[in-house]
Amino acid sequence: MLSRTQRLMENAPDMDAIIIANDGEPFLDSSFWYITEQASGCFESSFAIIRKDGSMDVIVNILEEETAHCGKGDVKVYHNRQELVDFFQQGLKGCETIGFNTHSASYASVMAVKKFLDRDFKIVDASDALAHTYAIKDAKEIEATRQACKISSQVANELPDYLSEGITEKQVAARMDARMRELGGTGNAFDTIAAFGPNSSQPHYMPGHYALKKGDAALFDFGTKYDRYCSDMTRTVFLGEPPEILKRAYEVVLEAQTAGIEEYHAGALANAADLAARKIIDESEFKGKFIHSFGHGIGMDVHQPIHISPKSEQVLEAGNIVSAEPGIYIPGVGGIRIEDTVLITENGCERLTSFPHEFTVI
Amino acid sequence: MLSRTQRLMENAPDMDAIIIANDGEPFLDSSFWYITEQASGCFESSFAIIRKDGSMDVIVNILEEETAHCGKGDVKVYHNRQELVDFFQQGLKGCETIGFNTHSASYASVMAVKKFLDRDFKIVDASDALAHTYAIKDAKEIEATRQACKISSQVANELPDYLSEGITEKQVAARMDARMRELGGTGNAFDTIAAFGPNSSQPHYMPGHYALKKGDAALFDFGTKYDRYCSDMTRTVFLGEPPEILKRAYEVVLEAQTAGIEEYHAGALANAADLAARKIIDESEFKGKFIHSFGHGIGMDVHQPIHISPKSEQVLEAGNIVSAEPGIYIPGVGGIRIEDTVLITENGCERLTSFPHEFTVI
Repeated sequence: MLSRTQRLMENAPDMDAIIIANDGEPFLDSSFWYITEQASGCFESSFAIIRKDGSMDVIVNILEEETAHCGKGDVKVYHNRQELVDFFQQGLKGCETIGFNTHSASYASVMAVKKFLDRDFKIVDASDALAHTYAIKDAKEIEATRQACKISSQVANELPDYLSEGITEKQVAARMDARMRELGGTGNAFDTIAAFGPNSSQPHYMPGHYALKKGDAALFDFGTKYDRYCSDMTRTVFLGEPPEILKRAYEVVLEAQTAGIEEYHAGALANAADLAARKIIDESEFKGKFIHSFGHGIGMDVHQPIHISPKSEQVLEAGNIVSAEPGIYIPGVGGIRIEDTVLITENGCERLTSFPHEFTVI
Repeated sequence: MLSRTQRLMENAPDMDAIIIANDGEPFLDSSFWYITEQASGCFESSFAIIRKDGSMDVIVNILEEETAHCGKGDVKVYHNRQELVDFFQQGLKGCETIGFNTHSASYASVMAVKKFLDRDFKIVDASDALAHTYAIKDAKEIEATRQACKISSQVANELPDYLSEGITEKQVAARMDARMRELGGTGNAFDTIAAFGPNSSQPHYMPGHYALKKGDAALFDFGTKYDRYCSDMTRTVFLGEPPEILKRAYEVVLEAQTAGIEEYHAGALANAADLAARKIIDESEFKGKFIHSFGHGIGMDVHQPIHISPKSEQVLEAGNIVSAEPGIYIPGVGGIRIEDTVLITENGCERLTSFPHEFTVI
């Protein structure tokens, strides 16, 4: 079986080498951990150089030395700038076309590498090659994601117990986060969204002091990490009977999610699921109210570049892990979103998250 | 009083404009939230353009429209690439020298702006101007940090209750994180470090399945966010009497921290605190075992670029918030670190965190 670095370089036939550059927190590139297989450590100001044959230098400062030896690659410890420059010049000897993870490398770190090398070379974008490599999860990665999904699903199931009239978004979000940690999650996959009433119509709303009222939608979008891997799910419930329009929107979103998930299997076009779901919403009275994509890749980052969107030309592969999250947003009234984390398999897919999907009034 | 954008441009006299570019999660630049004063939202693929007069365009996609109007600046919503290009060309008319937050902007987003403008301009680094602006916290920011510190201090005080023989690092970290959320924290400031026994000699260790033993050091480095602002603190305690060498190391670290904090006041050189602490450690039997800096700035990111290090040439100002965290690391045996979050004031400083600093055996 090919190593991760070998698979990466197979996906980057035009590159002599790929550099993964970790700047300071919070601008740490999870591909660094993926490719070096480091279970621990944050590796600020660290670099991985991967060459055509799959060999790799892992260049770290003295702070990371002890930790770095737990992963893959040849660890090179720099104590000063000159050593860093030397490691780059040696490690990239003869490399003319060098790839960077351009959406995850800071501008400054790419400029720094240019200075270290102090010669002409061609910078290309390695983000597709990387994305294609880490998009296919191995058994260990799937198991970690499964654990993350199990933990957040437990919380999704308990949500009705957390809600009562007058409780605030912040209070519920805090309880959810605490519970995910208690259940063994190693930290939030992202800041929990708890949005009540009209706030639920903002897809990226952050919990505030709004107190839950009868008739409100209560939308929760959340996930945990487990061994660096993320879960991502959304459940929307109601405190007391909501206005008819939200009940109807829930029905349409659920139908859209089911239709989308039916399109998930290895070999499918990534846009098929989005189009199937969008068709249902756009043929309903909620035309135009599904204002984001149906899904995205999930891994060490909660958003990985598998785009389940109308214009996506990607093809799904077994081992992809993606979200399925249609929504309808009605400003001033509320929003509905239903989301699962889904594993693509040869013959179809498997939902890794689980919670009652039916319309739920508390 | 000057607005944040006006202060920023005063700190960047050589720039016609500054662009803050937010790529996708997790590569979001907290300066975007600082400068737009957005309490909510994540603002993926969003940009702020700040011009010489302090005026600001906030360029967002339709997903962020509703949220964006809660902050400062002229909100411009793009629906397609051409609108985005137009906003850039109009917003930067006549600007020849344009600053970027180069350590927090992805290489791809700077390249995208180059394409949008499609003309020559000079890219300069605005990170110092930004850092200098957000380094001086106003009353509202100090209050948020104070709340974050209060929450994590409560957990630091409770730590001895969480520890018993056989408990694992992961278990304690989970309880700490849950408790911070319960107390009103809005999320971890960073992944909690809980390192027992020999693991504590790795400054960036991540909690694992190691079970606490008699004689072990137990090091906890953690913090919470509150209204986007971070706390950062470290407490090291012991389960049963540790080896004499760790007891002695604790004594030296505590002395070093006290000496360092005595150097904290407005007008002081930032390296003074580091040198004072380092002198104590390097004159002890632990010479060379303090392998990182004494401190760093703290704000919306837990690491902000105030460098409390031997060679730092920065000068502290009233309103800076910094860490004070000397440590001694003995591979194979254990590590000691003691850390507070400290507010620099005109006449000295104020510790915002509080916990028993004395040598504590449980």
